[in-house]
Amino acid sequence: MADFKWMKELHQKNNTKMVLLVMDGLGGLPMKPGGETELEAAKIPNMDRLAKEGTLGQTIPIRRGFTPGSGPAHLALFGYDPLHYDVGRGVLEASGVGVHVNKGDVAARGNFCTVDADGKITDRRAGRISSEEAMPVLEKLQGITLPGVSVETRLVREYRFALVMRGEGLESDIDDTDPQKTGVPPLPAQANSSGSERAADLFNQWIKLAREALKDEPKANAMTLRGFSTDPALPQFPDIYGLRAACIAVYPMYRGVSHLVGMEVQQFEGEHPEDEFATAAKLWDDFDFFFIHIKKTDSKGEDGNFDGKIDIIESVDKALPELLALKPDVLAITGDHSTPARMKSHSFHPVPTLLWAPETVREDTQNRFGERACALGGLSTFPATDLLPMMLAHANRLAKYGA
Amino acid sequence: MADFKWMKELHQKNNTKMVLLVMDGLGGLPMKPGGETELEAAKIPNMDRLAKEGTLGQTIPIRRGFTPGSGPAHLALFGYDPLHYDVGRGVLEASGVGVHVNKGDVAARGNFCTVDADGKITDRRAGRISSEEAMPVLEKLQGITLPGVSVETRLVREYRFALVMRGEGLESDIDDTDPQKTGVPPLPAQANSSGSERAADLFNQWIKLAREALKDEPKANAMTLRGFSTDPALPQFPDIYGLRAACIAVYPMYRGVSHLVGMEVQQFEGEHPEDEFATAAKLWDDFDFFFIHIKKTDSKGEDGNFDGKIDIIESVDKALPELLALKPDVLAITGDHSTPARMKSHSFHPVPTLLWAPETVREDTQNRFGERACALGGLSTFPATDLLPMMLAHANRLAKYGA
Repeated sequence: MADFKWMKELHQKNNTKMVLLVMDGLGGLPMKPGGETELEAAKIPNMDRLAKEGTLGQTIPIRRGFTPGSGPAHLALFGYDPLHYDVGRGVLEASGVGVHVNKGDVAARGNFCTVDADGKITDRRAGRISSEEAMPVLEKLQGITLPGVSVETRLVREYRFALVMRGEGLESDIDDTDPQKTGVPPLPAQANSSGSERAADLFNQWIKLAREALKDEPKANAMTLRGFSTDPALPQFPDIYGLRAACIAVYPMYRGVSHLVGMEVQQFEGEHPEDEFATAAKLWDDFDFFFIHIKKTDSKGEDGNFDGKIDIIESVDKALPELLALKPDVLAITGDHSTPARMKSHSFHPVPTLLWAPETVREDTQNRFGERACALGGLSTFPATDLLPMMLAHANRLAKYGA
Repeated sequence: MADFKWMKELHQKNNTKMVLLVMDGLGGLPMKPGGETELEAAKIPNMDRLAKEGTLGQTIPIRRGFTPGSGPAHLALFGYDPLHYDVGRGVLEASGVGVHVNKGDVAARGNFCTVDADGKITDRRAGRISSEEAMPVLEKLQGITLPGVSVETRLVREYRFALVMRGEGLESDIDDTDPQKTGVPPLPAQANSSGSERAADLFNQWIKLAREALKDEPKANAMTLRGFSTDPALPQFPDIYGLRAACIAVYPMYRGVSHLVGMEVQQFEGEHPEDEFATAAKLWDDFDFFFIHIKKTDSKGEDGNFDGKIDIIESVDKALPELLALKPDVLAITGDHSTPARMKSHSFHPVPTLLWAPETVREDTQNRFGERACALGGLSTFPATDLLPMMLAHANRLAKYGA
């Protein structure tokens, strides 16, 4: 499916509306043998009703056994084979804050850090300075100029920033400068190919000037750069699927990956599920496809906060009637991967998935939305890249293949 | 997945221990409609407990509908796509008895047979002579010399032997000399490519000398050669998965295929499950991964002995506490293929599979280890090649893919 040949050929126009509601890191584990997962323990009457009326399954984000990062996991949900389309972290980060990365540009993700008098890192996140503290620091970097190239920096949040270098002859095969530990200095930008030497040299020049500019900062007096990468030139949603697609997400990375696939990333107030659903309501007539992203299920999972993750899931369920009132033709509710609170990290487990489409869904035997139910659902266990084609089909947006 | 690129990139070190327990030909069928399979009928309290605590699924060894041979079925369990990695029977047989096949060597599997005065085969297995009878016959062959090449022969068991020819300019694209029936003479070794003509010619010279040497034997007075093949140069376990892997198997072919993938094949006394588990206990600190092979489930299936197959499964279950006492982090119990006693042969049915990993497994709704339960398990139905990546994941030996 990597080249989307059939999607491009078979998609057809329609007035139907589709919603892909992603609760990041949705899949979980019981805290004790025999117990319920976060999703199973959550009181979610609306989703349970959709599960009864719709059909369930489990998605495999990348391959069985692979623990996905958020970027590749979202590409999969958008129908892109994440082992084929490799998007660098720098590009995701820059796109997420609205800094465009074009062909030939090199993007990196920056972290402010603290170094001691010997230049050795004492804090890899500069004391986790706030966005308010970081902004004037970043402004000091914006005065730096280099010969023959331009450099754009933008704050992502707190100690994180995006950096994009633009100019001739730049390639991005460059190692991270983050040594991943304290007590040692940041590494130089090291090219892994002769084509990337010019860019690496320019990044090292930039780092030198940046360190000079920040030398009196108490916390953010140095930086590491990671995920050097360039425009992946991804096939675009409107071409592949014939869709006007809106991204409704709070966190930069998800906005970034949505932009890269050709969705229109929306600005809105608030960061709760009801704010996101209200944004969908406002835009309802202008788009065919709505990607709505809930971040905090993953954050709570990463924190090992089982009950906190349940609370987030329940808050989504509580707000759901607002979304359902829009009468979407197809609604998929899933995660990009599992983040069991018990593991405090992303995991390789399959992801519970609910597909609801009142006109065309084939009901299965399951009546609740949860991991055990999804393992017995009518959609079975399937690659996450197949979800979007199934949504299109249920929206009557894919023509018959063959006569 | 055929090239293992991602496994090589993502595997990481850990101290976790994994056991792959293969009951050969495990999958079965009821003898009568509505009845239980061998595995379902077996009293296996230990495996049932593991099924309750763990998760179940069904593996497809090659492709749906394909009945696997033992070699390809094991390659699949080791994570190698058996349609991509083609290992000849001759190489498997030679490797299984410790005769190494290097690049440029040509191996074949030999069967002693009986021919009449006209050279026509009267018994394709030389009256199934015992290993004791066959040994002096084989010794007569070991005196044969050919110009420019060396030939090594070794008894496998009973009427079967391995043969490896070493020298310059040898290729293995040669047809079997076994006509697969009696009443006709053995076929000559026939090259299918010009590059294989030299080897075919040398094999025919060897056959002529061998027939001359055995002309007075009452039973084993001739031979057929099958599975001409050379070193498949398989990627090696330590490189792909970063594992020190031990093979604990009684039968030569399984030892052979394990050797070919870079496992360390163990010598041990006894041939019962408890002997194999005791061997694992002795080696526990020296390896990361233990492949333990139980042959007789398949043998009983091939004999059509339904109750005998149950007995073997129960004997494994009875010995299992010895293995569990080692506290493996991940235990997979499966077969390489199905061998239903009702069919008296390997079959194309999916294979019941149990995955147990106390720290990370996601429980499903199933409480017993059996075919029907596995079809409803949380792992769903999946390619056998995905089992090893899942075992690695549950052992925390695969890094996250992408950020």
